Amino acid sequence: MEKITVSLGYRSYPITISAGLLKYSASFLPLKSGDNAMLVTNQTLAALYLHKLLTLLNKADVKIDYVILPDGEQYKNLSVMNQIFTALLQKSHGRETTLIALGGGVIGDMTGFAAASYQRGVRFIQVPTTLLSQVDASVGGKTGVNHEMGKNMIGAFYQPVSVIIDTDCLSTLPPRELAAGLAEVIKYGIILDSEFFQWLEEHLDAILALDSKVMRFCIRRCCELKVKVVEHDECESNIRTLLNLGHTFAHAIETHVGYGNWLHGEAVAAGIVMAAYTSEILGEFMSVDTIRIINLLKRAHLPVRGPTNMNAEAYLPYMMRDKKVVKGNIRFVLPLAIGRAEIRTGIDQNIVIKAINTLQNS
Amino acid sequence: MEKITVSLGYRSYPITISAGLLKYSASFLPLKSGDNAMLVTNQTLAALYLHKLLTLLNKADVKIDYVILPDGEQYKNLSVMNQIFTALLQKSHGRETTLIALGGGVIGDMTGFAAASYQRGVRFIQVPTTLLSQVDASVGGKTGVNHEMGKNMIGAFYQPVSVIIDTDCLSTLPPRELAAGLAEVIKYGIILDSEFFQWLEEHLDAILALDSKVMRFCIRRCCELKVKVVEHDECESNIRTLLNLGHTFAHAIETHVGYGNWLHGEAVAAGIVMAAYTSEILGEFMSVDTIRIINLLKRAHLPVRGPTNMNAEAYLPYMMRDKKVVKGNIRFVLPLAIGRAEIRTGIDQNIVIKAINTLQNS
Repeated sequence: MEKITVSLGYRSYPITISAGLLKYSASFLPLKSGDNAMLVTNQTLAALYLHKLLTLLNKADVKIDYVILPDGEQYKNLSVMNQIFTALLQKSHGRETTLIALGGGVIGDMTGFAAASYQRGVRFIQVPTTLLSQVDASVGGKTGVNHEMGKNMIGAFYQPVSVIIDTDCLSTLPPRELAAGLAEVIKYGIILDSEFFQWLEEHLDAILALDSKVMRFCIRRCCELKVKVVEHDECESNIRTLLNLGHTFAHAIETHVGYGNWLHGEAVAAGIVMAAYTSEILGEFMSVDTIRIINLLKRAHLPVRGPTNMNAEAYLPYMMRDKKVVKGNIRFVLPLAIGRAEIRTGIDQNIVIKAINTLQNS
Repeated sequence: MEKITVSLGYRSYPITISAGLLKYSASFLPLKSGDNAMLVTNQTLAALYLHKLLTLLNKADVKIDYVILPDGEQYKNLSVMNQIFTALLQKSHGRETTLIALGGGVIGDMTGFAAASYQRGVRFIQVPTTLLSQVDASVGGKTGVNHEMGKNMIGAFYQPVSVIIDTDCLSTLPPRELAAGLAEVIKYGIILDSEFFQWLEEHLDAILALDSKVMRFCIRRCCELKVKVVEHDECESNIRTLLNLGHTFAHAIETHVGYGNWLHGEAVAAGIVMAAYTSEILGEFMSVDTIRIINLLKRAHLPVRGPTNMNAEAYLPYMMRDKKVVKGNIRFVLPLAIGRAEIRTGIDQNIVIKAINTLQNS
């Protein structure tokens, strides 16, 4: 079992990583006998885990209710989130309740924002079930929903009281979702840790085979890297922005093709390559490193180009609405080497367009 | 000009109270030349102030957009709030924007929550235009919207960067809304300040005539009293609950009759009398003080009973869903004397029913 503590003063919380955690009610601490809780999950996961978890928590004398949401990024919006509030009110949950988010990023983000907002704030426990949410959403307290005009535009910074990562959940994950998670894993290597990037090149086959020891290390390393960044910059005023490598492009793709058509991780993979090309054109990144990135993404079964029907100019209006825009200036995260990245503003839009075009025609 | 500072560490902010403030762009500090802002208001106020304010702020070189929402408590919900996000995204407002809430409690609460949530938090300036919002919503950082099953169930604690109280706004306020504000004013006297209660008994006629000196003192005193409470207990874990005198009953009334039919202050007036009756039955409050309260509320043209078609039993299910319920136990604020109140749990529901029945049949 691996345990990491996210230190944010009185809002500090533990992340526990191990196989089989969902078999033990003790994993759900600080929930205890006599407490109320509301389990939030989606249709797909409910079929796999709902009955077992309700039995487990009932036995532990937790009064547990549940709400099942539709599965998919296209449902991460205010009106689906309202179903959580309705369920809480129907079952008369008060301020002392605890929300449990069982699912991937969509369930985690939406449940976290619901927890931040219900009666102006109740406790929540994250149980991320996808690789992407385990390495990304479990640290950092970013919660929220999409607006039809922009991804993650509505939300709150809000910390869980505990994160439970049961690596057994990955065995039920569709291969496409595993790959999507690997995009974020690879991202950590590129922006922060060249040794980890090399480790990934060496262990990718074991990861794809879900080797449990390799997987546990991989998830722990990503969480540790993210913890280090978030502890320094909880509200993303500075270095936390680095974690958005590829995301400005990715959000444009996801919004353009419609939420749920491209997985977030798939869009991030394409976005990372676009950022590498932009940096190359600026003379800041070596093409040999771009090739290493592309090769690793390909081995992970990830796309390394944007959608074929989306031309370079189509990216700009979405990018201008991005949260990283400051006074009309797009802020880009540019890789400078494997293991090092920087935040840049004032980059000529034509260079960005050229980078996307070069990639799309390569 | 009166100035009060709300001291909450780095989130401290000033409240400025004076006639004519909306005539000067300097009132809108920290907004400055070159900044973006989004003015949020309702149809009624837009007709009175929108053109003047846009002209004023444009002259001061603030890039100001606006969104006009429908007027009324029944529109304080997630889907109307979403119109604010849509307007912000349509006009490409980034994280550095400032929302300006021009209106009463509904506009203030909804704009505040939108500011807390847009891109996970942007600045906002409150310009409360009703007496109720001037004495109540301008201090404390409670923001949020209603759910069809319960009032203010969704929201955040979020502080404005400045509150601008222009007492001239009260001259355009309908008499019924002025009265609704007085319910909260009278509440401050009952829970915290017997001298202020007596001052209100002496100056109620001058208040109803909107005497500007009397009005300024009245608003300042309420803000001061609330500031004292909120500085000690921002997140309502303890003494801030006192400010909810009458509100558990009031929320039941408002939810039962449908938002917008009874004004919040009207429901609070009836709720205060119900709390006084409950306290009387428990032997904790003197009937002579109940009579002083009823007389003052009546002089302020406020109801002193609940809706005639709502029987006592109908209050309970709403009260059980109130945010002040802890593990199924209703927490009541009970007046113990004029100027002193206490939080009580475990009060027998039958006593509450008896209090409501006695009042309704009196």
